[in-house]
Amino acid sequence: MSILVVGSVALDSVETPFGKASGILGGSAIYFSAVASLYTKVNLVAVVGTDFPMERLEFLTDRGVDTRGLQVMDGETFCWAGRYNYETNTCENLDTRLNVFADFHPVLPEGYEQSDIVFLANIDPDLQYEVLRQVPQARLTMLDTRHLWIHDKRESLTTAIRAVDVVTMNEGEARAFAETYGTLTAAKAILNLGPKVVIIKQGEYGCAMLGEDGYFSVPACPLEDVRDPTGAGDTFAGGFLGYLDKVGEMTPQSTRRALVHGCAAASFTVEEFGVDRLRSLTLEDIVGRYQELHQCTHFEDG
Amino acid sequence: MSILVVGSVALDSVETPFGKASGILGGSAIYFSAVASLYTKVNLVAVVGTDFPMERLEFLTDRGVDTRGLQVMDGETFCWAGRYNYETNTCENLDTRLNVFADFHPVLPEGYEQSDIVFLANIDPDLQYEVLRQVPQARLTMLDTRHLWIHDKRESLTTAIRAVDVVTMNEGEARAFAETYGTLTAAKAILNLGPKVVIIKQGEYGCAMLGEDGYFSVPACPLEDVRDPTGAGDTFAGGFLGYLDKVGEMTPQSTRRALVHGCAAASFTVEEFGVDRLRSLTLEDIVGRYQELHQCTHFEDG
Repeated sequence: MSILVVGSVALDSVETPFGKASGILGGSAIYFSAVASLYTKVNLVAVVGTDFPMERLEFLTDRGVDTRGLQVMDGETFCWAGRYNYETNTCENLDTRLNVFADFHPVLPEGYEQSDIVFLANIDPDLQYEVLRQVPQARLTMLDTRHLWIHDKRESLTTAIRAVDVVTMNEGEARAFAETYGTLTAAKAILNLGPKVVIIKQGEYGCAMLGEDGYFSVPACPLEDVRDPTGAGDTFAGGFLGYLDKVGEMTPQSTRRALVHGCAAASFTVEEFGVDRLRSLTLEDIVGRYQELHQCTHFEDG
Repeated sequence: MSILVVGSVALDSVETPFGKASGILGGSAIYFSAVASLYTKVNLVAVVGTDFPMERLEFLTDRGVDTRGLQVMDGETFCWAGRYNYETNTCENLDTRLNVFADFHPVLPEGYEQSDIVFLANIDPDLQYEVLRQVPQARLTMLDTRHLWIHDKRESLTTAIRAVDVVTMNEGEARAFAETYGTLTAAKAILNLGPKVVIIKQGEYGCAMLGEDGYFSVPACPLEDVRDPTGAGDTFAGGFLGYLDKVGEMTPQSTRRALVHGCAAASFTVEEFGVDRLRSLTLEDIVGRYQELHQCTHFEDG
């Protein structure tokens, strides 16, 4: 079992009401791999510049993440800067410098094409589709996206959505893509394009899933200290797909459990800046939060 | 078994992206009674002006609501006008004319003081406290509030909160009252004042409850058509307390079930303008949505 992730590796600068950090390790592929590698083998594809401090990836390679797919290109690494206010569901984009990411084309090292599951983080939908054509035998494919592609590349994004099994978006992205204010209506519109499952991420309110099994909703773990929401969605995806790869089947019940694993994983991410909390995270930690989520959502049928 | 509700009876004017209505029956005591009366006997205390069309209350008296506590005072009935935009969690207050409500003092007709449960809707906290002193033997008391009292009467509100068993607030109100941006932190701060249970209403995201049983969260029913959110919180309270009065005990499990009944009841309110949907609502309808909520939140422990 293994998961291919194609996404970004970045140097992030983040400000929240609880502090700031600059030049820290970030990017969707990093957050995803940090969690998914607790469940299964992860094959990473991304790009960095020659300035990138490779030693920062040691905690991932220690977890068995295969980084042969990390291209090093002449130039600077992708940089992102953002600021969150107290309403942590919204983020102000301060600066985005694509740098080497602008010319990135995913190349799969030998063996990666055997990955059982493919996660296409929120990169250009044309690149997502490029990858999909290289992994025709994947058991399960999932993509994430962002407002930029909804606005600038709607057609490409629609093509990519039609080609995957699972789509995950933030609530605001789903509403913007489906051009509706109703979250359920948006999820149905996306589902109608072909995916088996649509996951709507609702930040501090958890997430909702719509698929053949109907509608399923799970709250976020109740937390008192949310320090930095960066990466929550990517670690959510890491827990969701990591769990599904580990159990090896996608039944209605295993998919629900996977969603809760995703929420549980994301809850750790937001407790510290960047990937700090994820360095020491264990699968047992995630299972503990899974049980807490069960405890705080369970009620008798009647 | 019976519930005393003290709140407003109003003539509302509401605008939403899906239509508008003016001079329609509204007020917290009306919305609450419309639902609670499906479970149990309701004793209503409120005030209207001589302009109030009494025949509009027939659907409530038909459900056994005791309206002997409805005072008729010289002057006009309380009027409220509001506008919701697509983000239905927020409401723009267009006009509030207290009229006869400004001089209202709750008077309990004979027998009302025997009510098992007391719901103090979002009226002046001094009046809430006045009522509490008249029902010392009530088995369960609950209050709601609004931003106005948090800003203008914090001390009185704190006194009332210390004297009740259950507090319910919107998320924004709880954060404002506790002066924190964290919802869980706000709920803990309110709980520390003395109530056994604090309920945080989260609009389209459902609600959360904190008490001796720990934290419990339930999503809102997934709806495609939300036409008018007015009264959702009061009908939530009607389902919550109505269920608890009917089952006659407040255990951790019955309290969770009551919260789900509240969410299920509120989901009908928002589907039509004003009380329109509630006129034909049955307990079976609510139980049906309860089961839907169970279905869309259930997952296996692990």
